[in-house]
Amino acid sequence: MTTLPSPLRIEPIAGYSPQIGRLVGMLTYARSTTLKAVEGLTMEELDHLHDGESNSIGALLAHITAVERSYQIMTFEERLLSSNEDERLSTALKLGANGRRLLRTRPLEHYVEELTAARRVTLESLAARDDAWLERTVTSIPRINAHWAWFHVAEDEINHRGQIRWLRARLPKKESTLATGHPTNDER
Amino acid sequence: MTTLPSPLRIEPIAGYSPQIGRLVGMLTYARSTTLKAVEGLTMEELDHLHDGESNSIGALLAHITAVERSYQIMTFEERLLSSNEDERLSTALKLGANGRRLLRTRPLEHYVEELTAARRVTLESLAARDDAWLERTVTSIPRINAHWAWFHVAEDEINHRGQIRWLRARLPKKESTLATGHPTNDER
Repeated sequence: MTTLPSPLRIEPIAGYSPQIGRLVGMLTYARSTTLKAVEGLTMEELDHLHDGESNSIGALLAHITAVERSYQIMTFEERLLSSNEDERLSTALKLGANGRRLLRTRPLEHYVEELTAARRVTLESLAARDDAWLERTVTSIPRINAHWAWFHVAEDEINHRGQIRWLRARLPKKESTLATGHPTNDER
Repeated sequence: MTTLPSPLRIEPIAGYSPQIGRLVGMLTYARSTTLKAVEGLTMEELDHLHDGESNSIGALLAHITAVERSYQIMTFEERLLSSNEDERLSTALKLGANGRRLLRTRPLEHYVEELTAARRVTLESLAARDDAWLERTVTSIPRINAHWAWFHVAEDEINHRGQIRWLRARLPKKESTLATGHPTNDER
């Protein structure tokens, strides 16, 4: 995703139906800000727990991927998660104590590769669908439509990016992190 | 805004052009989650500073209103902020030390009224415009279009809502706050 441009415009994008293109613009912009927020973090920083109930930044990145994977299943495959999938994704979806225990000791590249692999599937799947599909009810969750589902994927990512920025501004100070710049007041 | 329904669907809404209606759905959903995140907070809780560099939850609510007000000027009035407006909004826009000093001692009702008054102007202004306007370049900031501007208003709110949830889960424990329910792991 780092190679995709993120213009500050929401408008139709070549390769997608017009409405889906606008949504892809939002997803892409959100992702670019997430990647910017974690740029240069070491494994130690990704694993750092601010307090005993915090999620690490690494765990939040794994959560963002897991949310995207689960909505792929629910909207593109039009079914609920199988018990295998639920088991595989649940630690990152639920976070908390299990997340603190299991989602660690991975370098930034691992998390970015997982995010990028998930996003590739999302973009390919969205490119193969049209605006009528986007507005349809999600059969496995009839109270939502596909457009809300994918807005929510971006929205949940942005929510956690806000937390990542906050946590990053409070990582134990090291020479290596000072070089990545000072957070703004807004991010504290 | 608490009285507006927030269905889990993004689709055209009566009273708005189709594209603007979808955007209004996102703005309304985001706002409903912000209001939910601060429900029942006392003035003391709204003013609480998690650490010496934190923004209080109250200050973040004031920030959300100030961002919306500034984008109203830039997109609906098609101009940059006047020096008077900049002076009036800058504490809430910039947060930090001045925000910690000045954005406090207001009850929840104050922040909610400010949010609601700003949103009323946004919705009235969007209802008076059409989808062609939404895609146009913002003349005062030519690198963005109006659709991105209003996506960004929701996006910035969601970012800070993520921080509000995190901060709320760590407020000093009081009997009165226990009644509002336990945060999920995801919110920690």
